[in-house]
Amino acid sequence: MEKITASIITIGDELLIGQVVDTNSPWMSQQLNNIGVWVHHRVAVGDMWEDIWNALDEESKRSNIILITGGLGPTADDITKPVLCKYFGGKLVMHQPTLEHVTYLFEHIFKRPMPLLERNRKQAEVPDVCTVLKNEVGTAPGMLFEKDGRIFISMPGVPYEMRSLMKDKVLPLLKEKFQSPHIGHRTLLTAGIGESFLAEMIKDFEAALPDFIKLAYLPNYGMVRLRLTATGKQSIVENELDKQFKQLKELVKDYLVIDEDITLQVLIGRMLKDKHKTVATAESCTGGYIAHLITSVPGSSNYFKGSVVSYDNSIKKNILKVKDETLQTVGAVSEETVREMLRGVLNIMQTDYAIAVSGIMGPDGGTPDKPVGTVWLAVGNNENIETKKFQFRFERLRNIELTAINALNFLHAFILKQS
Amino acid sequence: MEKITASIITIGDELLIGQVVDTNSPWMSQQLNNIGVWVHHRVAVGDMWEDIWNALDEESKRSNIILITGGLGPTADDITKPVLCKYFGGKLVMHQPTLEHVTYLFEHIFKRPMPLLERNRKQAEVPDVCTVLKNEVGTAPGMLFEKDGRIFISMPGVPYEMRSLMKDKVLPLLKEKFQSPHIGHRTLLTAGIGESFLAEMIKDFEAALPDFIKLAYLPNYGMVRLRLTATGKQSIVENELDKQFKQLKELVKDYLVIDEDITLQVLIGRMLKDKHKTVATAESCTGGYIAHLITSVPGSSNYFKGSVVSYDNSIKKNILKVKDETLQTVGAVSEETVREMLRGVLNIMQTDYAIAVSGIMGPDGGTPDKPVGTVWLAVGNNENIETKKFQFRFERLRNIELTAINALNFLHAFILKQS
Repeated sequence: MEKITASIITIGDELLIGQVVDTNSPWMSQQLNNIGVWVHHRVAVGDMWEDIWNALDEESKRSNIILITGGLGPTADDITKPVLCKYFGGKLVMHQPTLEHVTYLFEHIFKRPMPLLERNRKQAEVPDVCTVLKNEVGTAPGMLFEKDGRIFISMPGVPYEMRSLMKDKVLPLLKEKFQSPHIGHRTLLTAGIGESFLAEMIKDFEAALPDFIKLAYLPNYGMVRLRLTATGKQSIVENELDKQFKQLKELVKDYLVIDEDITLQVLIGRMLKDKHKTVATAESCTGGYIAHLITSVPGSSNYFKGSVVSYDNSIKKNILKVKDETLQTVGAVSEETVREMLRGVLNIMQTDYAIAVSGIMGPDGGTPDKPVGTVWLAVGNNENIETKKFQFRFERLRNIELTAINALNFLHAFILKQS
Repeated sequence: MEKITASIITIGDELLIGQVVDTNSPWMSQQLNNIGVWVHHRVAVGDMWEDIWNALDEESKRSNIILITGGLGPTADDITKPVLCKYFGGKLVMHQPTLEHVTYLFEHIFKRPMPLLERNRKQAEVPDVCTVLKNEVGTAPGMLFEKDGRIFISMPGVPYEMRSLMKDKVLPLLKEKFQSPHIGHRTLLTAGIGESFLAEMIKDFEAALPDFIKLAYLPNYGMVRLRLTATGKQSIVENELDKQFKQLKELVKDYLVIDEDITLQVLIGRMLKDKHKTVATAESCTGGYIAHLITSVPGSSNYFKGSVVSYDNSIKKNILKVKDETLQTVGAVSEETVREMLRGVLNIMQTDYAIAVSGIMGPDGGTPDKPVGTVWLAVGNNENIETKKFQFRFERLRNIELTAINALNFLHAFILKQS
């Protein structure tokens, strides 16, 4: 069974000058992976005729499937459609069902009359050599072309439009078209150990892996994910992955957080829901980011009650009841302050668990005693409080993210100990 | 003056299976743009010998500068260094200053003895045909190669290591090496008007732009950025951009938020700081995300006092003093509730301004009356409160982001009216 390969071409000047981050490609890659299609090449080009043309040429030599996003807007800088039309030797014609759909969207969804007729009508024109894939949530349709046994699919770059098209049209279509080999993954998350220590610990395991299984190290925020990937016949792949994964878990068991590819906030949410427990946060330096991570999980209202972001010391005192004396003597970034913040938030939110955090994220605000990156964390309940000091050494946003991830990891460990 | 072009090659399986989002490339593109280098091609490949090799071949035909990130870790899946060594016809040799630096990092920064000697020593090996660029904050050095007049620079994929190398070594070096033409940008942000309406409004302006100026539409979160980009001789470029940008601002003045390429949170921060005013948020459905956006700006402690994330109704009642009757009769997602939340947070945080928000982000929790995406916003001070209802129709995270951006935009408009 041959591997089915895909390339992703993203089109748009905004990607090349760095004005936007491409979150489409990772999502598309994950989805394709799930159906056994291996994305082995990704290209970003600007809104330039020649660059788009060359990318189509090059990727068609490389992959069975070429997915193209972007450059389908109604404005003059978007030229993907005319390029595709010329490349596949067609001419633009009005696609009546799309025109009706665009009109419908304007009247019933956007709730305004369809104005500027010419420009919006153009959204309904398609090359006569393509198969139209209806875009339920936007005006630019998906377009499928075939050439020399390759499949080309063009989609809008707007993330939710692309995702809707992928789920409803593209993935089912590709699944039907290609008999792809199975790709299996097993991922686990470790904490408290660096990449090179981990590598040393499992080097014999890694060396003994069969050829069709690959091991990858994915360090992120001071934690390392280990991922086994195998390609082949489903039964063999899954059996062997199960066997190897079991060994791997045993080897790293002292550092294992979870043997699934989920985030800490999902893991914590699941634990709290199962135990019918609740949590709250008292955040100074993270400014609400921990609460944001927790509430990014659907259903988090079942276990998350709220947060006090006490950026200003007056809020620490008046709402969280941190003692003025504490702030005067040991300061806002101290073990005693996060303890008092924790007790305060447990008291006013009446939750089973809480997190409290105070630190200096930079670039300003550091002192010789407490340089930028100094963070005090507390987690606990009404019986126990545990605290920990961190010293990060990065830029503001990364310090905020690292603090939040470490706070969640600290809470996870605390909850585990309670059961 | 010829355009100086660059390609970015990112290496790593984790990028291709979608496990991580590439934030390096946008940042690198921005930095290169600033020194007049035009990134016109970006490629992502896996940790595969042949794919890396081909990418080097292809991009060297395309660009003057080829920047390469990733695949330099101490583990076996990272093969960038041996590929580069072979590609440029060198052999790996121990680089003594790097070895000393790696040892120093372990002893003094990571604060643990340098273990696993072989693996970490290897980090200090480099091809004898490269110029080493010292990585001050990590173990994998930058490496510079020259071939057929092209510059190749390999850097680690860890974002802060790459950024440090770019700022201290790569950008100064490229600036010296290349006499690049000037690239100028002017960006403005609009709100309250769609991309196609905007395009119609400025179509004559767009058609009359000189050849060397390009106009781009960058829609994001229901707001549209317009960007003019010009390349050429600095004095001509800047003069013409000034002239055209003035015209453009006049044309869109009814929808203009700001005539700079900054975020709403930076803009609001600047306004509050200038006026010596403070702000707080009371957040239900956004779960702290608005507070996070505000506090992601350095120096925000000057004007942001804090937030109450009142996810649970008990928090709305007990801390923000929302009336039980209000919650019972019109519900948590209502104009009256956000009004009371706003008054509550103004009162307990004692700020000049505040934002309050309550809504249903999905996927669950919608009702026929209040479907998923229903959001009530309030902004105001002790004298005035303004409210607004939104109906978003996206997935959870996008709904949260859209709500937050619209809340900031609403606050911005409110502050403007006060002055």
